[in-house]
Amino acid sequence: MFLKKLTLLNFKNYESAQAELSEAINCFVGDNGSGKTNLLEAVYYLSLCKSCFNIPDLQNIKIGEQFFMIDGDFHIKDETEKIICAVQEGLKKKFSRNKKEYTRLSDHIGLIPAVLSTPSDTQLVYAASDERRRFLNGLISQHDRAYLQNVIDYNKALEQRNRLLKNFAQTNTWDELALEIWDETMSQTGEKIFESRKELIDKLKPVFQKYYSFISGDNEEVSLVYKSDLENGSLKELLNESRQADRFAQRSTIGIHRDDLVFLIGDRNIKKTGSQGQQKTYLVALKFGQFDLIKGITSKKPLLLLDDVFDKLDAGRVERIISLVAEENFGQIFITDANKVRVDKVLEKVSSDHRIFKVQAGKLELVDK
Amino acid sequence: MFLKKLTLLNFKNYESAQAELSEAINCFVGDNGSGKTNLLEAVYYLSLCKSCFNIPDLQNIKIGEQFFMIDGDFHIKDETEKIICAVQEGLKKKFSRNKKEYTRLSDHIGLIPAVLSTPSDTQLVYAASDERRRFLNGLISQHDRAYLQNVIDYNKALEQRNRLLKNFAQTNTWDELALEIWDETMSQTGEKIFESRKELIDKLKPVFQKYYSFISGDNEEVSLVYKSDLENGSLKELLNESRQADRFAQRSTIGIHRDDLVFLIGDRNIKKTGSQGQQKTYLVALKFGQFDLIKGITSKKPLLLLDDVFDKLDAGRVERIISLVAEENFGQIFITDANKVRVDKVLEKVSSDHRIFKVQAGKLELVDK
Repeated sequence: MFLKKLTLLNFKNYESAQAELSEAINCFVGDNGSGKTNLLEAVYYLSLCKSCFNIPDLQNIKIGEQFFMIDGDFHIKDETEKIICAVQEGLKKKFSRNKKEYTRLSDHIGLIPAVLSTPSDTQLVYAASDERRRFLNGLISQHDRAYLQNVIDYNKALEQRNRLLKNFAQTNTWDELALEIWDETMSQTGEKIFESRKELIDKLKPVFQKYYSFISGDNEEVSLVYKSDLENGSLKELLNESRQADRFAQRSTIGIHRDDLVFLIGDRNIKKTGSQGQQKTYLVALKFGQFDLIKGITSKKPLLLLDDVFDKLDAGRVERIISLVAEENFGQIFITDANKVRVDKVLEKVSSDHRIFKVQAGKLELVDK
Repeated sequence: MFLKKLTLLNFKNYESAQAELSEAINCFVGDNGSGKTNLLEAVYYLSLCKSCFNIPDLQNIKIGEQFFMIDGDFHIKDETEKIICAVQEGLKKKFSRNKKEYTRLSDHIGLIPAVLSTPSDTQLVYAASDERRRFLNGLISQHDRAYLQNVIDYNKALEQRNRLLKNFAQTNTWDELALEIWDETMSQTGEKIFESRKELIDKLKPVFQKYYSFISGDNEEVSLVYKSDLENGSLKELLNESRQADRFAQRSTIGIHRDDLVFLIGDRNIKKTGSQGQQKTYLVALKFGQFDLIKGITSKKPLLLLDDVFDKLDAGRVERIISLVAEENFGQIFITDANKVRVDKVLEKVSSDHRIFKVQAGKLELVDK
């Protein structure tokens, strides 16, 4: 599975652009603000129907225009499949496969899996726990649809329960029966979410550690720990026990909405003790681990989008990442870099087929085959 | 003013290290996790008495040890001044100038101003508004002590007012007189804070824009906008008008605790539309602007700490930053980079005095004078 041709119309800073891609390695080089990352975002759209940076669709329309279109010709199981994403002001987003429009976007998810590593992944280290839960959700829901529904149901119940608690405080009332209805939904869905997350991390951890150890040259010990209130008992019991605390706090103080992932280097949180290069290595290894996981589950090699992946890393780590991506294990890869010299050096060491595109103010030019 | 000699004991990954520094440009190169950024953090401690990454002092002690010490010999107005910062488990942080211990750390602030540009500055773009208010506070309080006291007083009053509002809701009572006491303090201090912030941004904006325009090669238009509720009237009136809303929300919905800075590229928020390279350029220009501002106010050239400053930037921007720092305008500069080749290239173009230190697993070695 790979993307043969990408065509953009009014997408971000691209008025009109087209690229015939290599089925192995594609590099986009160019100055800051030229639109390198926008190309990865376009590919991501074709895979997951949305922006990888949580940008509302309409904001991705080129300034002054009314619509954008991303058109991808994929090679899937010896067939050409045409995937088109079109966004227009005032209309619903259109997403089609071979000219047949999807009624539900979720039906497309999974056809073309993709994994993105980008500098803004540092948010996973620095932001509050909801960012890490979103990462978990994204990871699991790419291959498990029931999971996403559970999360939606859980969040609805949680919202209702919190509204009740606030209302009790404002009206100085208390009704345990009313709470129990929501406890029930939260428990049922919460337990399933907990199991899915635990299982995922159990699988992800060893693969991730293998990659980290390789990239760092076996230099540091890292780990990945899933933390949940539900380690302390069933959610039903826990909700029961926390009633008085919840009443006082006017919100639900226990549940999988408080889950977190802890990123460790040695036995300390990498946020506080890891260097920036170590944090970067951690996040890249995490994404490579995600790649292996999806590949194992779907038997497809996800598209690998590497945005500025060599930044911050020392020469040894850069070299080991290159030797990784040159392996058979990976499929089609997209790399952005502001540094053409570095990309040339990188590709010297790679025997796989590759193409370099020069990006300049929303123009795309093949410079090296 | 410059740092002649830096000595570290049990600081982070340094057991014991010493460096005789150049009064112009100092580069620290080394692999990821070797301890480059820790050196900048040590210098920052000597300037601002604390970690630049909000890390609690004790967590900066080398693992397995009980204390750390940072010892700096500064050249200030033709005299040598010895600044020592010592942190030990179970004891108060000790900070001394020429062997005389400060009774209040705040008395030291301003003696050796410093400006740090670091990749985690992206938090200014991505995090919630409190991060940007903290940036404003840090900037103003380096030269205006009354300001910091106003912020402390404001926050105390705000906390009390919010506690009252919550209490009213829980007990189903309402007492406007009790609120008015806190309204008074919040108004008095809030108005002053508002004026200071407005004045600061008015001064910072043109300098910042000048730097951005230079570094980007005049490629993009940027702006910096200060947003505050207080643009709509006096805080006293606003608090008065918002009473019912506050009562319902159970917290103060108006005030300078909601202030924000908006970072614009063109007329859009750089968070959504700027590329990573543009965001980086924005943040570097902001810090250079901060440098000029402090220099203007204190008539001292702050130490300039540039952590991974060339990352993500295209060749043109890198070159223009180099030409900037080589100018007379700046004083002593500290640069970290994982890429020795890049640093060598950079320094080829610089005629100022410079030293390169190789950092390796907590060891420091002068490799080029």
